[in-house]
Amino acid sequence: MVIRNHYASLDPAQRGWMDDVPSYMPPIALGDAVRAASVGVVHASARPDFAVGDWVMGMNAIEDFSVAQPGSLPTKIDIARVPSPTNYLSAIGVTGLTAYFGLLNHGQPKAGETMLVSGAAGAVGSVVGQIGKIMGCRVVGIAGGGTKCDRLRREYGFDAAIDYRGKSADRLAAEIAGVVPEGADIVFENVGGTILDAELMNIAQNARIILCGLISEYNHPEPAGARNLRQIFIKSATLEGFLFVEHTSQFAEAAAEIGEWIADGKLRVDEDVQAGLENSYAAFMRLFSGENSGKLILKII
Amino acid sequence: MVIRNHYASLDPAQRGWMDDVPSYMPPIALGDAVRAASVGVVHASARPDFAVGDWVMGMNAIEDFSVAQPGSLPTKIDIARVPSPTNYLSAIGVTGLTAYFGLLNHGQPKAGETMLVSGAAGAVGSVVGQIGKIMGCRVVGIAGGGTKCDRLRREYGFDAAIDYRGKSADRLAAEIAGVVPEGADIVFENVGGTILDAELMNIAQNARIILCGLISEYNHPEPAGARNLRQIFIKSATLEGFLFVEHTSQFAEAAAEIGEWIADGKLRVDEDVQAGLENSYAAFMRLFSGENSGKLILKII
Repeated sequence: MVIRNHYASLDPAQRGWMDDVPSYMPPIALGDAVRAASVGVVHASARPDFAVGDWVMGMNAIEDFSVAQPGSLPTKIDIARVPSPTNYLSAIGVTGLTAYFGLLNHGQPKAGETMLVSGAAGAVGSVVGQIGKIMGCRVVGIAGGGTKCDRLRREYGFDAAIDYRGKSADRLAAEIAGVVPEGADIVFENVGGTILDAELMNIAQNARIILCGLISEYNHPEPAGARNLRQIFIKSATLEGFLFVEHTSQFAEAAAEIGEWIADGKLRVDEDVQAGLENSYAAFMRLFSGENSGKLILKII
Repeated sequence: MVIRNHYASLDPAQRGWMDDVPSYMPPIALGDAVRAASVGVVHASARPDFAVGDWVMGMNAIEDFSVAQPGSLPTKIDIARVPSPTNYLSAIGVTGLTAYFGLLNHGQPKAGETMLVSGAAGAVGSVVGQIGKIMGCRVVGIAGGGTKCDRLRREYGFDAAIDYRGKSADRLAAEIAGVVPEGADIVFENVGGTILDAELMNIAQNARIILCGLISEYNHPEPAGARNLRQIFIKSATLEGFLFVEHTSQFAEAAAEIGEWIADGKLRVDEDVQAGLENSYAAFMRLFSGENSGKLILKII
């Protein structure tokens, strides 16, 4: 089966797949197209269960056409159900589901708890914060720059937002302490580095730190590392990693609940759609410069 | 009540109490005696429930006599039950109970699993490794120097031992991979730094890392930090901190089980008893130079 890719997902995880370290997927080989989740249309099919013209999503690559690999067949999608086919890469795609499972299955938020979310204006963080509010938590976001912080408060309903730019871990820790004096019960971590260091100085007893990503490290051959791990035993806290693929059995249920929240106006999922295969590198780098806000997607055609 | 201290416990945790960082106890004030668990005898008592001559243990200090503080009364102990009163600081004291609760309550080892233990020749590590064997695990210890590694295999029954001295994180990671090719299901971490970095490169899917201590960091104002946290989400692992005081309700039960294991010859608890208040600094530093093996105790009289 050949798929005509229309949209490719651009995610920090792809940067991880480029490194030759033990991981949950083999590294992308030198010279290969960059692996990516994509949404597209069946262009040619030798399988009776997929017809030319069917919309599908799957793990393909940043390329015009992908040949479906044995063992990783795409999934048919119903684009009539959603405002845009890109939603299968955002709200009900990897990032929306990552936010949903990471927070609900691993963080287990309870009403009245306080949450800190880093990368809060990103595709995962913005959804995590809003689901936290739906669950009755007090939600504080950490993001880069005043514009993003304003957006967290005004558009995503965060209770407070902290701009990390230009601040040392100590300075950021003091600023968080001013906003979260009782300490955070849940930390949803997308960034690492000085942000994680500052958060660790502000965790409550028995805090749950959900480790979703460490975007600040991916482009550094020698990452700074987490310096305040001591707080994890001092506070009897837990740092828990997860991958969204562990929760496949709940995908349909989660997508349905996310869809309801969107329909009810409780959840807003923004997309940052950049056009053109030839712009894929510049578009991808928006993730690391902090330029993007919401789910970054490359429009191929 | 005044207590004549006979023995004081020397533990890495005391180094932590000397730092002015948010912790589970206030820092030891400059000029104060060094807070320590001690075993001693009631010297004078204004309380009807404690008689002069009663053996007690409690949180006191490295000093000849301690005045029991309101709210932290000592506990009476029965020294006829044990070979030496020091056992209340080792096998059935903080270190033995820390090993017991950390491994059993937090690590939840299952027969056939593989465990990595750092600081494996220490007071906590040596007990953790032996309890791991009792639970049917394959246990690999990491310790400093050939003598300690020999002791892990010969005296504590570890399946394998790795000497970390003089090795980079990469070199140590490669050595661990040779001994634990399938990855560790449980890591019991006492050390941090390059040892934790190397362990993280060798965890199995869904590994549980029990964070008990980070002794390599305590004397460094700017610790190196953990550089391989990425493996925690890559492997959907958990890093869990704990304090033994959370498990007070199980103290009696745990001490009884530890006592049985010792009586049955399944558990060996070594003590490194150094004599003389005037030697307390030199004795304490044995923890950080790696000279000590087993539970470090200061004999006061």
